[in-house]
Amino acid sequence: MIVVMRVDATDDHLDQLVHVLHERGLTPHISRGVERTVVGVVGAASGAGAAGGFALELGALLAGLSGVESVLPVTKGYRLASREAQARPTQVRVSTPAGEVCLGGPGVVIMAGPCAVESEAQLLAAARAARAGGATLLRGGAYKPSTSPYSFRGLGEAGLALLAQARAATGLGVVTEVLSVETVAQVSACADLLQVGARNMANAPLLEAVGRSGKPVLLKRGWAATIEEWLQAAEYILATGNGQVVLCERGIRTFEPLTRNTLDINAIPLLKELSHLPVVVDPSQGTGRRSLVGAVTLAGVAAGADGVLLEIHPEPEAALKDGAQSLGLAAYAALMPQVRAVALALGR
Amino acid sequence: MIVVMRVDATDDHLDQLVHVLHERGLTPHISRGVERTVVGVVGAASGAGAAGGFALELGALLAGLSGVESVLPVTKGYRLASREAQARPTQVRVSTPAGEVCLGGPGVVIMAGPCAVESEAQLLAAARAARAGGATLLRGGAYKPSTSPYSFRGLGEAGLALLAQARAATGLGVVTEVLSVETVAQVSACADLLQVGARNMANAPLLEAVGRSGKPVLLKRGWAATIEEWLQAAEYILATGNGQVVLCERGIRTFEPLTRNTLDINAIPLLKELSHLPVVVDPSQGTGRRSLVGAVTLAGVAAGADGVLLEIHPEPEAALKDGAQSLGLAAYAALMPQVRAVALALGR
Amino acid sequence: MIVVMRVDATDDHLDQLVHVLHERGLTPHISRGVERTVVGVVGAASGAGAAGGFALELGALLAGLSGVESVLPVTKGYRLASREAQARPTQVRVSTPAGEVCLGGPGVVIMAGPCAVESEAQLLAAARAARAGGATLLRGGAYKPSTSPYSFRGLGEAGLALLAQARAATGLGVVTEVLSVETVAQVSACADLLQVGARNMANAPLLEAVGRSGKPVLLKRGWAATIEEWLQAAEYILATGNGQVVLCERGIRTFEPLTRNTLDINAIPLLKELSHLPVVVDPSQGTGRRSLVGAVTLAGVAAGADGVLLEIHPEPEAALKDGAQSLGLAAYAALMPQVRAVALALGR
Amino acid sequence: MIVVMRVDATDDHLDQLVHVLHERGLTPHISRGVERTVVGVVGAASGAGAAGGFALELGALLAGLSGVESVLPVTKGYRLASREAQARPTQVRVSTPAGEVCLGGPGVVIMAGPCAVESEAQLLAAARAARAGGATLLRGGAYKPSTSPYSFRGLGEAGLALLAQARAATGLGVVTEVLSVETVAQVSACADLLQVGARNMANAPLLEAVGRSGKPVLLKRGWAATIEEWLQAAEYILATGNGQVVLCERGIRTFEPLTRNTLDINAIPLLKELSHLPVVVDPSQGTGRRSLVGAVTLAGVAAGADGVLLEIHPEPEAALKDGAQSLGLAAYAALMPQVRAVALALGR
Repeated sequence: MIVVMRVDATDDHLDQLVHVLHERGLTPHISRGVERTVVGVVGAASGAGAAGGFALELGALLAGLSGVESVLPVTKGYRLASREAQARPTQVRVSTPAGEVCLGGPGVVIMAGPCAVESEAQLLAAARAARAGGATLLRGGAYKPSTSPYSFRGLGEAGLALLAQARAATGLGVVTEVLSVETVAQVSACADLLQVGARNMANAPLLEAVGRSGKPVLLKRGWAATIEEWLQAAEYILATGNGQVVLCERGIRTFEPLTRNTLDINAIPLLKELSHLPVVVDPSQGTGRRSLVGAVTLAGVAAGADGVLLEIHPEPEAALKDGAQSLGLAAYAALMPQVRAVALALGR
Repeated sequence: MIVVMRVDATDDHLDQLVHVLHERGLTPHISRGVERTVVGVVGAASGAGAAGGFALELGALLAGLSGVESVLPVTKGYRLASREAQARPTQVRVSTPAGEVCLGGPGVVIMAGPCAVESEAQLLAAARAARAGGATLLRGGAYKPSTSPYSFRGLGEAGLALLAQARAATGLGVVTEVLSVETVAQVSACADLLQVGARNMANAPLLEAVGRSGKPVLLKRGWAATIEEWLQAAEYILATGNGQVVLCERGIRTFEPLTRNTLDINAIPLLKELSHLPVVVDPSQGTGRRSLVGAVTLAGVAAGADGVLLEIHPEPEAALKDGAQSLGLAAYAALMPQVRAVALALGR
Repeated sequence: MIVVMRVDATDDHLDQLVHVLHERGLTPHISRGVERTVVGVVGAASGAGAAGGFALELGALLAGLSGVESVLPVTKGYRLASREAQARPTQVRVSTPAGEVCLGGPGVVIMAGPCAVESEAQLLAAARAARAGGATLLRGGAYKPSTSPYSFRGLGEAGLALLAQARAATGLGVVTEVLSVETVAQVSACADLLQVGARNMANAPLLEAVGRSGKPVLLKRGWAATIEEWLQAAEYILATGNGQVVLCERGIRTFEPLTRNTLDINAIPLLKELSHLPVVVDPSQGTGRRSLVGAVTLAGVAAGADGVLLEIHPEPEAALKDGAQSLGLAAYAALMPQVRAVALALGR
Repeated sequence: MIVVMRVDATDDHLDQLVHVLHERGLTPHISRGVERTVVGVVGAASGAGAAGGFALELGALLAGLSGVESVLPVTKGYRLASREAQARPTQVRVSTPAGEVCLGGPGVVIMAGPCAVESEAQLLAAARAARAGGATLLRGGAYKPSTSPYSFRGLGEAGLALLAQARAATGLGVVTEVLSVETVAQVSACADLLQVGARNMANAPLLEAVGRSGKPVLLKRGWAATIEEWLQAAEYILATGNGQVVLCERGIRTFEPLTRNTLDINAIPLLKELSHLPVVVDPSQGTGRRSLVGAVTLAGVAAGADGVLLEIHPEPEAALKDGAQSLGLAAYAALMPQVRAVALALGR
């Protein structure tokens, strides 16, 4: 950590800073420049995993001292999720009736299905189409988060039962969202890959509960989370000893009103650089407009995503949830060969 | 709800729309303009509370139909929280040892205390200074949310005990945050006003649990929540039958890097217009810089806030959490007469 | 245009609205719903090009009337740029010594070169590498915008002379930025494609001046411009009678601090839907990090961009401007076959 | 400037960095930590004004070197605008027929008038009401920027003549916007305080032209400009030798759709801390909703603004521009005593 003093900082200011650092067992290295003094703090960045968080708190404290202009963090609030901690890519392995699906390996994994499970007929039609198009995992929400208390919030336990049935019928693994600590066990019994949604990215008790479930976890980025905050959320799961985490970019909130979210395509290669965890992309949430989903799916694969999460529906016009961003089954079937062509062109 | 057709929409597109509406028992009113056709949907906005949420889902569905350019919602996803449902301002009454504190009445309520409860000495010093400056509620976190798993996360149950002790010693009521459904009962036993933090604004299970606790609730705005989403979160609580909700503006995430958040001052009068619920302001979180807290506190009161939530600390330089945005006790004592002067100038 | 009245709007409010509309020669169509009244305004959307802008002003005025809850625009502020005005894609044809380059046709056009022209040696090395990699246009700034008055602002007229020399030497056409009305003639004498930068997207006098120059124009999106504002900026150029406009997505400003901008990949297919103008992508500005440029270039092509604008430099470490986002010549050479592979996979 | 090396940086990476620094006459100070090496760069922050800009470019360059994780700027891109350069507040003095108006002194200056000059009757009615309410400066646009080419763009030269007439009739000084370098002389002949609008905040040629005009300048913040970028824009004017610059906070672009902009109230005390220039606030643009203007005006004054810029109109319902955010004359008259009461309460 580096503390930059103000141009008008006095020796008393500097003494107070040194005192605060010594109290915490840290060693200041003082450099007096032509204009101002800069103090390096040694000790804060080394040692156990906890140092990262400690450094964050300390930085906030030092920034409030008189005479201090700014504090420049050198360490991050995550460690297990970083490339520095593990250079080789993590491969997340999801068990399905048809065998293991590997996220983070050479292949591009397709996860498709309806936004919400609505009925046996709807789910089975979507699941069969998903498999025919090349998907190996079936997405579908039994518990749905909702902005308004008056919106459809999913079929709950009955939805889980339908997912189990579709899983058995098609051999696809199941990806489904868990909304609360109390339902982690119930949802884990059905899901092959547990989804934590954008609204819950910073819900620490839930992150720790899914971590302890032992299941692989798909962690969506929060609406307005920075990439460092997202990696710190992943760190909550990793710190429970569960290393099977997949990051899912699903768009961020910006000022642009014509799209529901702005898919952050930069995040894909950047996460690959900062972290060893697999990265997938959700063009349905990331755009909110069906007509854009195909192009953005191809963009995600071209940018290096390890997988794609797609909302498809046998009758999007009749969907109870997010119909406007769901692909019809024919549109999905037409898109998949293009996905394969782009993946192949890039050697995947 | 109003559906605007594309200029090139065909009669078939219109027929499909009419069909979808009829299936749902809705009546379309078709207006053929010079350039395009616009369809009003009657029925969607009337009726029970659920209509709002229903309308939202329906709107998304219709937006996905062929030939539809856009769908213009006329109803909102909240109703109980709206001025239309209740014209007179809600007064939230918080019981304290020293009597009832009223939020939403003529007075401006001061809530002050440390970000996190750290020790008996720290909390009592802050509580006494808070009361001396005119506060009637003591804020302080026993359970602290944290971006990094390695940061200080509060004293937990021991912190609640210290809050109870400070409450007895000073007569101040207690405002403290609850992070999970499992701890609602425990925290409610100590808190006079239950706080739901920004990270949990969209955590529906938690909103419903605090609603059912029967305690008054302070609901902070999410980092990146629109005002309509925030009112829908309040609606989750109101829909449980608990009408005692206070909204707390604490800044939103923007591109500006020099402040931790951008306090949305516009939100204060706008919420007063859209809703009957009391509105308070948190200049500590809303700025993240101690030197700005005083000016922004005065601005919040001038804009019409019913109260102020302030982080104060006997020794901000030594704070375990958010020291950089905490006022020292002397600075707090100096600010309070200015707050009273502004409130008085505006007839409060 | 549709005017939604408040639930508590009175007949007087409605009469005032009707009066304002009649004064402007417009016909209100009043629909009284169960809860509220909605007024359609006929006439505003039809007629000459000016109607769009007129409707915008009128909407703002009506929104301020007593009893009005909201005004829902049906028309947009652009017309010539819209797909409705012209269904077939515009092909922008840029003359170069080596023949015409077509943007908006089947091929993907590569525009590469240094951020700023620095010297003959630097420019020629970059230009030769650009051509060898498949570029047909050479980018390079002679006049550079700069946030700080103390930063490098380009070689000016001498830079234009170097561009002319590189053009003659390599046969590449020249893309270069113009910063002011006064230099449009001078820059046009050198440029084959005139660039209007992000800072000037909303600079109406400059847009009209480049429109009247008769040269094709590359119009970058403003830092924080919505897609509709951007299309309205294009409309300024189109309204001068110059239809040769290329839109360049170069990232928008968001809360994410790790990248200089967030490239809005959604914008590419969305612009294709809303407009007939060609769309290109600038992954250098759009990311600000050299290590992300390759992946985001491929993503842009996969999303349907008609071209790519790339900053390359023979010695990025020594660049006077934007070295951190410039590709070295070897990295550029390695990227181009991947670009061709993706383009080919998608039938371009 | 401080360069933080990656954990896996090699000695070769460090040698290259040292080489680049030496080439530029800079001295690296290398600190080898437990985990990583940090290099302080001495020389970059000292010396002439140009050093700030130079440091910015250099930082970008160093960030692109192999082995470098991040570069932490210690200097800023502005100097003349900073508190460090001048500790005492600047007082900007505007000449008016009724005497000098001082911005940045003890008083709060009211600038009021219509968004756009529309007619003699409209302007005179607004000007007389402005003066009666306590304004000393009359605002009004003769040249109006416009997002759409089809919107009203002002009366131009005829509008300037009307402003001159209203100035003579009322004794108020004139604040009016200049949109292009070519019209600086013409507008300066009429204006007592030249306004540079949000769209042109980063238009360097215009900033330099208004600087050289010798007139005091009101510089609005760009839609999406950070505070540091805004101060760098002010620096362009100050660097011409014209020190009479007033900063005007007018709201920034955020994700919130219910308000036209989000007024950044934090910016007012923050600018006072970072700079010696006067700061005023524009609640009309900052909210876009007439019903919010009063509360946000009071908030601005309470936060320490040196003045307020208000849109008022004798008949807002009939305004050609921005009627929805203009106060009627009676509402303005009612607001002014509240403004005075808040100012008085805070000792102004």
